[in-house]
Amino acid sequence: MTEKTKLITPRLPRGFEDRTPGEIAAVGAMVEKIKQVYERYGFDPVETPLFEFTETLGKFLPDTDRPNAGVFSLQDDDEQWMSLRYDLTAPLARFFAENFETLPKPYRSYRQGYVFRNEKPGPGRFRQFMQFDADTVGAGGPEADAEMCMMMADVMDALGLAGKYVVRVNNRKVLDGVLEAAGVTTDAQKLTVLRAIDKLDKFGPEGVRLLLGAGRKDESGDFTKGAGLTDIQASIVLDYIDGKPPADNDGVAELAAMQSLFDAAGYGAEKIKIDPSVVRGLEYYTGPVFEIELTFKVQNEKGQDVVFGSVGGGGRYDGLVSRFRREPVPATGFSIGVSRLANALKLTGNLGAAEPAGPVVVLVMDKAETARYQAMVSELRQSGIRAEMFLGNTKNFGKQVAYADKRNSPAVIIEGSQEREQGILQIKDLVAGKQAAAAISDHAEWQAARPGQFEIQREDLVSAIQKLLSEQG
Amino acid sequence: MTEKTKLITPRLPRGFEDRTPGEIAAVGAMVEKIKQVYERYGFDPVETPLFEFTETLGKFLPDTDRPNAGVFSLQDDDEQWMSLRYDLTAPLARFFAENFETLPKPYRSYRQGYVFRNEKPGPGRFRQFMQFDADTVGAGGPEADAEMCMMMADVMDALGLAGKYVVRVNNRKVLDGVLEAAGVTTDAQKLTVLRAIDKLDKFGPEGVRLLLGAGRKDESGDFTKGAGLTDIQASIVLDYIDGKPPADNDGVAELAAMQSLFDAAGYGAEKIKIDPSVVRGLEYYTGPVFEIELTFKVQNEKGQDVVFGSVGGGGRYDGLVSRFRREPVPATGFSIGVSRLANALKLTGNLGAAEPAGPVVVLVMDKAETARYQAMVSELRQSGIRAEMFLGNTKNFGKQVAYADKRNSPAVIIEGSQEREQGILQIKDLVAGKQAAAAISDHAEWQAARPGQFEIQREDLVSAIQKLLSEQG
Repeated sequence: MTEKTKLITPRLPRGFEDRTPGEIAAVGAMVEKIKQVYERYGFDPVETPLFEFTETLGKFLPDTDRPNAGVFSLQDDDEQWMSLRYDLTAPLARFFAENFETLPKPYRSYRQGYVFRNEKPGPGRFRQFMQFDADTVGAGGPEADAEMCMMMADVMDALGLAGKYVVRVNNRKVLDGVLEAAGVTTDAQKLTVLRAIDKLDKFGPEGVRLLLGAGRKDESGDFTKGAGLTDIQASIVLDYIDGKPPADNDGVAELAAMQSLFDAAGYGAEKIKIDPSVVRGLEYYTGPVFEIELTFKVQNEKGQDVVFGSVGGGGRYDGLVSRFRREPVPATGFSIGVSRLANALKLTGNLGAAEPAGPVVVLVMDKAETARYQAMVSELRQSGIRAEMFLGNTKNFGKQVAYADKRNSPAVIIEGSQEREQGILQIKDLVAGKQAAAAISDHAEWQAARPGQFEIQREDLVSAIQKLLSEQG
Repeated sequence: MTEKTKLITPRLPRGFEDRTPGEIAAVGAMVEKIKQVYERYGFDPVETPLFEFTETLGKFLPDTDRPNAGVFSLQDDDEQWMSLRYDLTAPLARFFAENFETLPKPYRSYRQGYVFRNEKPGPGRFRQFMQFDADTVGAGGPEADAEMCMMMADVMDALGLAGKYVVRVNNRKVLDGVLEAAGVTTDAQKLTVLRAIDKLDKFGPEGVRLLLGAGRKDESGDFTKGAGLTDIQASIVLDYIDGKPPADNDGVAELAAMQSLFDAAGYGAEKIKIDPSVVRGLEYYTGPVFEIELTFKVQNEKGQDVVFGSVGGGGRYDGLVSRFRREPVPATGFSIGVSRLANALKLTGNLGAAEPAGPVVVLVMDKAETARYQAMVSELRQSGIRAEMFLGNTKNFGKQVAYADKRNSPAVIIEGSQEREQGILQIKDLVAGKQAAAAISDHAEWQAARPGQFEIQREDLVSAIQKLLSEQG
């Protein structure tokens, strides 16, 4: 490559990110715990590819706050449009329909993987992110929905979040009944009313009343236009969120059936709670909806204490599979946002596993003797010890030790010509060395003490390192 | 959805596939074993996103047999071209360059993930497939290349393939030296000569001689045009593959240095072998190249015995990072084709882990008593037992049992009104039941014996199932 070649700037498109060893290990451990719960519930893994035909996916993006949220699409060689999946539910509907004859029914499955959104990225909003879903297809009763809620609670317990979450449950049919009773008919007005209900936690009943009516002015003076309901209309909605659901409503009966299952299985209101203010996925869901909310406080960007909030949710979606088949195919499921949940676990100290421990580094003191150092490394590796020979520029001893430090190496192994003649090795315990060095203030003293450094016989390499690693814990 | 709505056919674009529970479990177990070897060698995981800027990836598709092999590309909202990664090496070069200041150098990393090729799919050739790579960036010496080869050998050993593989090693500089000595100068002729060398295993020296000269006619009469070398030119190439490498060649010296490291670490020729016929990645590599070959025989589509062949390989690529930085950044690495290796393990019986065992199924004998059945399932799950309540149409007892059979359920649990009154449960051991049923020829006998079925007290549910599962092993 000539000097004149224009260099390319190494960078990622916005909304995409690299993952570090610590993140990979932590998310891997978290995902493993979630899998164990899913499998205990009888769910089986399945994996679909990242591409589907665009018509297969349809337009079912769950978040209607962003109706124009896009998908990544392109045409293949046969001029057919393919898209990267934007969630794990639409591909499941295709998979179930395609394998309808051979799958057990009801079909319980879990799926983990990346999904893509072609939209404007922002803080905490990515164009590639991981979801972890569980769904039951072919079961129409509230038992299947109740199972989803209990499984979400068990997942949170398994992750060490007991007492820090609640699974909140509602039903689209109840919300629809209230909107109908209140005479709310246009989609736009429905949306505004549902958004107002969604704000109950934040603004209380008085705030919701304002948002249902003319509008609400916040402390900073900003005005949010309301749904424009009359007082009588608004009172129907307010009665509902005050705990008075519409009578003769299928959704209310379904919620009661679910509650009796929660009671039978011993899931109290501290774990799963029916909550009329849950508003979720307006266009997508057809019955029960649920949301996992983390209830502990965190500071937002402005330094204010806020509830951590949702890390996942779902509900019943009876229409999705019937895009492929004439008969009705009921389905229910939920999705966990893996990165967001991992972030919550980090905040609560439940994330666990960190990066792998650093390797023992065999220093290259004499380039002509590389084969001797290679033999040491191989001995260590064959004994199951994480180890490396230094592969960089070996002329500078300090750089080799600095490399080992950077790798969080437990120890470096030194064999110069003098050690070679005597059949010994110098071991520098980098953990003990750091502790001892911190206690020494004088450079001469340090030189004399050589903290953490000791000699062993060459043939004791493996046993000495095993002893050192077990002492370091 | 009305009757008139046109149904969508549930299917995948060609070259993409779903993965079953058995495949997911088996590949997961295989990948875990590979990771352990990589980590023992001091390699750290890293993960890059599936998209990169198109200019970042460049045109470095390793397989020059298909120079027009394509990538999936699209323009983002800012009109910049992005592409799905086609391998895990080009993104690593970007990652290393972007994080140059903070990464340890040399930088050892491993990466696992899907890559995409926008090309014509065929048998065993997919448009989405998984690779598992390891690379060392910033180490220019043959020690780094030798480490790659030994690590590949250790991976094969860890997967139970000892004695069934060989890591074959060559050097691009040696090949270049031979081509130069033979006076082969044009790229087209070089390619034909290298392809001829690559055929040594298949056609022997005589076959290669024909392919270097005018051409070769196979048994079916098909003629392959040769490279058109003169006899003198061809003899230089044939001397080379007969074991006489060019003198005064850097590549030969590098191979000798690698061999001394293999010797020092105890890797004999049954594991790692320097082989002049290895031809790999013509445009991509700049020094040592290596290939993992599985040496056992399999039958091809025509029923002929053939060697299983390559499951991965790699080499030194010193040019890739310098697209981003002025200074030279040497690098070496290799890539394992995960699906192909999993397929090999399946053939040798080394694939291990199968699907998760089926769940205990609690039958719903009385829809009004669902809460009772839910309580049983929850008890089992809370004791760590994989269990489900049947969630489908409960009117047909036979369908419930058939569902349990299909799930490979170890047992179903039955509580009808009679059992409920007596405080007992019926357990149907589906494994014992199948064995016993096979020994019974008469239907009346079967009815009387009810093979595998027994009664327990309701309160003994968990302990009885634990006992049954441990007996089933």
